[in-house]
Amino acid sequence: MKVVKFGGSSLASGAQVEKVYHIVASDPERKIVVVSAPGKRYSDDIKVTDLLISCAEKYLNGADAGKLVETIIGRYKSIAEELNLSDDIIGRISDDLLSLLHGDKSNPASFIEAVKASGEDNNAKLIAAAFRHKGLDAQYVSPKEAGLLVSNDPGNAQVLPESYKRLYELKNRPGIIVFPGFFGYNTDGDVVTFSRSGSDITGSILANGVKADLYENFTDVDAVYAVNPNIVHHPKEIRELTYREMRELSYGGFSVFHDEALIPAFRAGIPVNVKNTNNPEAPGTKIVNARKNINGPVVGIASDEDFCSIYVGKYLMNKEIGFVRKILLTLEEFGLSFEHVPSGIDDITIILRQNQMDEAMEKSIVQTILRDLDADEVRVEHDLALIMLVGEGMRQKVGTAARASKALAEANINIEMINQGSSETSMMFGVKEAVEKKAVQALYEEFFTEVGVH
Amino acid sequence: MKVVKFGGSSLASGAQVEKVYHIVASDPERKIVVVSAPGKRYSDDIKVTDLLISCAEKYLNGADAGKLVETIIGRYKSIAEELNLSDDIIGRISDDLLSLLHGDKSNPASFIEAVKASGEDNNAKLIAAAFRHKGLDAQYVSPKEAGLLVSNDPGNAQVLPESYKRLYELKNRPGIIVFPGFFGYNTDGDVVTFSRSGSDITGSILANGVKADLYENFTDVDAVYAVNPNIVHHPKEIRELTYREMRELSYGGFSVFHDEALIPAFRAGIPVNVKNTNNPEAPGTKIVNARKNINGPVVGIASDEDFCSIYVGKYLMNKEIGFVRKILLTLEEFGLSFEHVPSGIDDITIILRQNQMDEAMEKSIVQTILRDLDADEVRVEHDLALIMLVGEGMRQKVGTAARASKALAEANINIEMINQGSSETSMMFGVKEAVEKKAVQALYEEFFTEVGVH
Repeated sequence: MKVVKFGGSSLASGAQVEKVYHIVASDPERKIVVVSAPGKRYSDDIKVTDLLISCAEKYLNGADAGKLVETIIGRYKSIAEELNLSDDIIGRISDDLLSLLHGDKSNPASFIEAVKASGEDNNAKLIAAAFRHKGLDAQYVSPKEAGLLVSNDPGNAQVLPESYKRLYELKNRPGIIVFPGFFGYNTDGDVVTFSRSGSDITGSILANGVKADLYENFTDVDAVYAVNPNIVHHPKEIRELTYREMRELSYGGFSVFHDEALIPAFRAGIPVNVKNTNNPEAPGTKIVNARKNINGPVVGIASDEDFCSIYVGKYLMNKEIGFVRKILLTLEEFGLSFEHVPSGIDDITIILRQNQMDEAMEKSIVQTILRDLDADEVRVEHDLALIMLVGEGMRQKVGTAARASKALAEANINIEMINQGSSETSMMFGVKEAVEKKAVQALYEEFFTEVGVH
Repeated sequence: MKVVKFGGSSLASGAQVEKVYHIVASDPERKIVVVSAPGKRYSDDIKVTDLLISCAEKYLNGADAGKLVETIIGRYKSIAEELNLSDDIIGRISDDLLSLLHGDKSNPASFIEAVKASGEDNNAKLIAAAFRHKGLDAQYVSPKEAGLLVSNDPGNAQVLPESYKRLYELKNRPGIIVFPGFFGYNTDGDVVTFSRSGSDITGSILANGVKADLYENFTDVDAVYAVNPNIVHHPKEIRELTYREMRELSYGGFSVFHDEALIPAFRAGIPVNVKNTNNPEAPGTKIVNARKNINGPVVGIASDEDFCSIYVGKYLMNKEIGFVRKILLTLEEFGLSFEHVPSGIDDITIILRQNQMDEAMEKSIVQTILRDLDADEVRVEHDLALIMLVGEGMRQKVGTAARASKALAEANINIEMINQGSSETSMMFGVKEAVEKKAVQALYEEFFTEVGVH
C-alpha cells in the first residue's frame, strides 16, 4: 500500500487534478492520497492558503472580505468547472468556509488556524468528488474522524503518539481515501496546523500509521538534484538517497523537504519517493534507510552561506576540563545556536549563522569570552560558506578527501576549514563566500563529470 | 642576557660539567645557569633524584639507608674529583643532605619534597664551585634567597606572580648565577617541587623574571626533529618553531618539553633555543613567538595513539540548542576529558584518550547518552591514532590538505577523521592505530623529501 501526497502546484488547476487522477488511478496500491490546498498556477498567482490568511485577518478586524471570499471559492469553482463536476461540491465548500468565517472568534489564533486549514480540508473534499466523478471509489476523510491528534502548538503541531493506532484503521476502509494535509486536532477538538510544508508531514504520519510500503511525494521537479541548479546547469539527478544523506543535503540549502517532515516515515523505515506530477514516468528520487547501489562516494553537494566563525585561542586550553563546554554555555546564554566546533589543541572555532548576531552582540560575546574564560585571543571572521559533500559511499572509499581537497586546490580555493566526523556520511569544507560557487563547481566537476573521474 | 638551563645528562659526570663550563664561559651573555640534579651516565644508571626519593622513603620507614646516602654523595664526589675540586664542597653537600635526612619528618610529604629537591640544590652548589675553580666569577643562588615563591602543590607547584619582581633583581648581581632547578618555596618557607621537567620550568620563570633575550635549553639532542625518529630514520631537524607549533607537536607525542614549562617564557615573548651540550656548535631549534622564514607549509608531524571515539547520532540534533553541551557535561560528570568534537548535522563524535574509560564505564556512558539525551545511536570505536600536521605556513598555502590527503590515499590509508580548525596551524587526521606508522611515513615523504614536493 502506498501513501501519495500531492503539493499545491499539482492541484492548482483542473488540468493538474486530471494528472493527479491518472496517477492515482494507474496504481491500485495508491490507497491514501494527501492533498495540499490549491497552489500557484503561474508565478504571480497567490496560493489559496495565503488568500485564506488575509481573509481571516480581515474578518478579525471587521474589514470587508467579500471580494477575497469570492476569489477563494472561485479557485475551487474553476477547478470543478474544468472537470465538469456538479455544483453540489462547490456549494458544500462555500457553506463550510462561510460558516467558519462567521463562527466563533473568541480565540483569534484558533480562528486563524481553522480558516488556514480549510484550504486543504476543502480541497480534499473537492478532489474526492473529482475522483468519484471519474469513476474511482474515493472518499474524503477528516483528520478528526481519523484520529490525527496533535499537540496544541499552532503552526508547529507535533503528532501525538496515540494517533498512530487509530490511523492504522484507515487500512481497512474500502476505496481511496482523500486526506487533507497540513493539520490535525488537539485533544479539545480544535484545528492545529503543522509547520511549513505541513502536507509533507501529514503524508509522513499517515505512511507510518498504516505502515505503508512507500510514501510517494509528488512535486513539480523530476528528482532531487546532485547540486543546486543555480550553481551548476542541468546537474545530475539523484536516484537513491538515504535519510541521512537527505538530511545533510537539506541542511546545506536543499529545500526538497522540510527536515522534520520525514521523521515519522523515517522512524517506521518507510521509503519515500519524490516524483513529478507533470512527468510521473520519471523514476524520481527514492529516500531510503539504506541503499545498496553506491555509484560514487558522493551523492550530492550542498552549500549554504552567511556563516561566521568565532576563533578562541588559549595556551593549554586542552588541559582545562570543561573549557569548551563553558564556551558553548556562553553562546547559549546569548541565545546562539552553532553548527560546528572544529578544534585544535589550544584553539577552538565555533561556526554559526551570522544573522544571529549584530555588531553589539558580537562585541559583547568577544569580551565575555576574553574576560570570563580568560582566553588569549578571540577573533570573529565573517562571510563564510559551508559546503557539504554528502554520501554514504565515503565510508568505504579511500581518497574522497584527497579528491575533494585536490579539486579545490586546483581551483586555487583556500580551505578555511575541514570537518569530517567519524560518521563519514558527509565532509564539510568552509570557504569564503566569495568563492562558494567556484568551489561547488570544482567539486561537482570532480565527482560528477566523466572527465573528473581519476 | 641569556638564561641557560642544563639537563641531568649534561651534568652527569665531570666530563659533562667540563662541556657545560666551556659553553657558559664562551659567551658572556650566559649570565644565569639553571641546573638539574646529576642524571644518568649510561642507560642503566640511576638518576640522583630517584636515589634521593628512595632514600627519603627509607628514612621515613626507619630502614637502613646508609648505602644509599653513600651512593648519592659518591655521585657528587666523583664529579668533584674528576674536576680536581677541593674536598670542602663535598663536605658541605654531605652535611646539607645529612641534616635534611635527620631533620623534621612530622610532615612526610614535605620531608620528601625537601630531600628530592636537594639533588638540584646541591648540584647547583657543586657547579658553582666548579666554575669558580676554573676561574669564572660564579655563585650559587638559592630560590629562597632569590624569592622564587610558589603555590603549595607538592609535585605541581605554580609560580606566584609576586616572584617576578624579586627575580628581576638577579640581573644586578655580579658574575654568573648558578640556580637549582625543579623547586621553589611556599610562603611558609617550605620547599615545593614543580612537575616533571621542573628544571625547564625554573629556567622559563627566570628568563621571564630577568627579561632575558634568550632562554637556552641544553639537552642531549641536536634539535627537535620534524618527526619521531622511531618512525622515520634520520628525520630533518627543525630550525625554527613557533610556540604554537611546539605545543601542537608536543601534544602529539613530542616530548622535548613539558607543555607548561614554556608558559612563563611564552608570556614574556622570550625565544627558547634547544641545544645539545655534546654539540654546542649545532644551531639547535629555536622556539619563537613568530617566525619569518617559512620553508614549507608543514614544520613537523606528530602522532599519538590510544584514542577512541564516541559517535552520537540523533535525527535533527542540530536543531536542539544545547545538545552538544549536554553531551560534554555528561563526559565531565564521568571525569573524562576529550580532545576533539568533530560534528556532522545529526551526529557528533567525541575523541578522547581511551585509557580514561574501562569497559564498565564505557557501557555506562553509552547508556547515559542514549537515555538522558534520547540519542538514536551511540557507538564507541577503539584504537585510533591521531596524526597532527603542524605548521604556521599552512595558513598561507593553498593545497596542504590536498597534498596530505592524497599522500594518505596513495598509501591506501582510510582517513577516519579530519579536523582542521580555522587557525590552520595544524591539521588533524584520525586513522586506525594499525596504520599509524605507515600514515606518518607517507606524510613525511610528501612534505619533507625532495621527491615528494609537487
